Amino acid sequence: MTTGHEVDSVPRRFTDRSADSRAAILAAARARFAADGSEKTTIRAVAADAGIDASMVMRYYGNKANLFHASASVELALIDHVTADPAQLAAGLAHAFFERWETQDNSVERLVLRTAMTHPEAIAQLQRLFDEQIKPSILAALSEDPDAELRAALIMSQTIGIVLCRYLLGLEPIASADPEVLERALRDAVLQHLTRPL
Amino acid sequence: MTTGHEVDSVPRRFTDRSADSRAAILAAARARFAADGSEKTTIRAVAADAGIDASMVMRYYGNKANLFHASASVELALIDHVTADPAQLAAGLAHAFFERWETQDNSVERLVLRTAMTHPEAIAQLQRLFDEQIKPSILAALSEDPDAELRAALIMSQTIGIVLCRYLLGLEPIASADPEVLERALRDAVLQHLTRPL
Repeated sequence: MTTGHEVDSVPRRFTDRSADSRAAILAAARARFAADGSEKTTIRAVAADAGIDASMVMRYYGNKANLFHASASVELALIDHVTADPAQLAAGLAHAFFERWETQDNSVERLVLRTAMTHPEAIAQLQRLFDEQIKPSILAALSEDPDAELRAALIMSQTIGIVLCRYLLGLEPIASADPEVLERALRDAVLQHLTRPL
Repeated sequence: MTTGHEVDSVPRRFTDRSADSRAAILAAARARFAADGSEKTTIRAVAADAGIDASMVMRYYGNKANLFHASASVELALIDHVTADPAQLAAGLAHAFFERWETQDNSVERLVLRTAMTHPEAIAQLQRLFDEQIKPSILAALSEDPDAELRAALIMSQTIGIVLCRYLLGLEPIASADPEVLERALRDAVLQHLTRPL
């Protein structure tokens, strides 16, 4: 190995280690915030769980609010479903919703919703999720509609209601209903919110 | 006053005092459960807040779970809106919902929903609310429909979603939307859940 090669590889190895550390910190933070709530969670406890020095956690995230923000970020990728045809958009959003909730890890969404009842920073996170991910996908699809933002909010309300009843609280009969039946119900509810006169 | 009259009035006065004590206990319990959550609330603290001896609270309610159940009971009176005409039922339910949430005291509903995320007894209370008040009103209206129960659950999911977004979390733009616009949106969503093929 030449000296040049070694010098070249140092920043890359450092970056990999840094990414690993951040991932470990965020995983530990999610688990702590979910188990203890935001108030009782400390940077020190998260650092200990992640096996990383607390000063490093502070260096990466600065404070607990930033750490919550970083650990509770979700990428819904709804923009992939944008189409000018409301029926297709509704079907795409409903399908993406149930695919995500029935088959994927939702610990971040669960964390944000569970803590939202008592912690303003989780409410801010939900508002950001609406503003930055849900609303733009509806606005892009309904570009001419002055009520697009309220339509998006109504769609969010129906969706959050299903999340709450089925996935977070397990209320019957929605908790054990056939997901395909629910997907069609959500699709039609979304389509109605997209198209009915407001 | 005759002796007969006095004897007659003793039980009535006792009952009045008992009703006052119970009302004071339940009001104190609601405030404590809402502020501290179910876990941190104690019978002793509730009794102190109500100005009533803790042994009396125990005599009336037995334990904390019963006290929560009693203090978190809601009377939605949805059965008043039952009609065989789905459009009329949807309009009645949507109107009753916004009348309740826009103009009345909702501390009990807020308490149950806020604590449901972390306390199984609040989830049980929500399930009871659905089973004993929401479902029967929909079943009575749609007596021939084998899917009436799931329709009721979907209506509950849309309704809880609006409660959460507008009243508990204050997410925009639904939090500051015109309640009449929202009432029409809820009416149409309820009607769709009542009538679409499942």
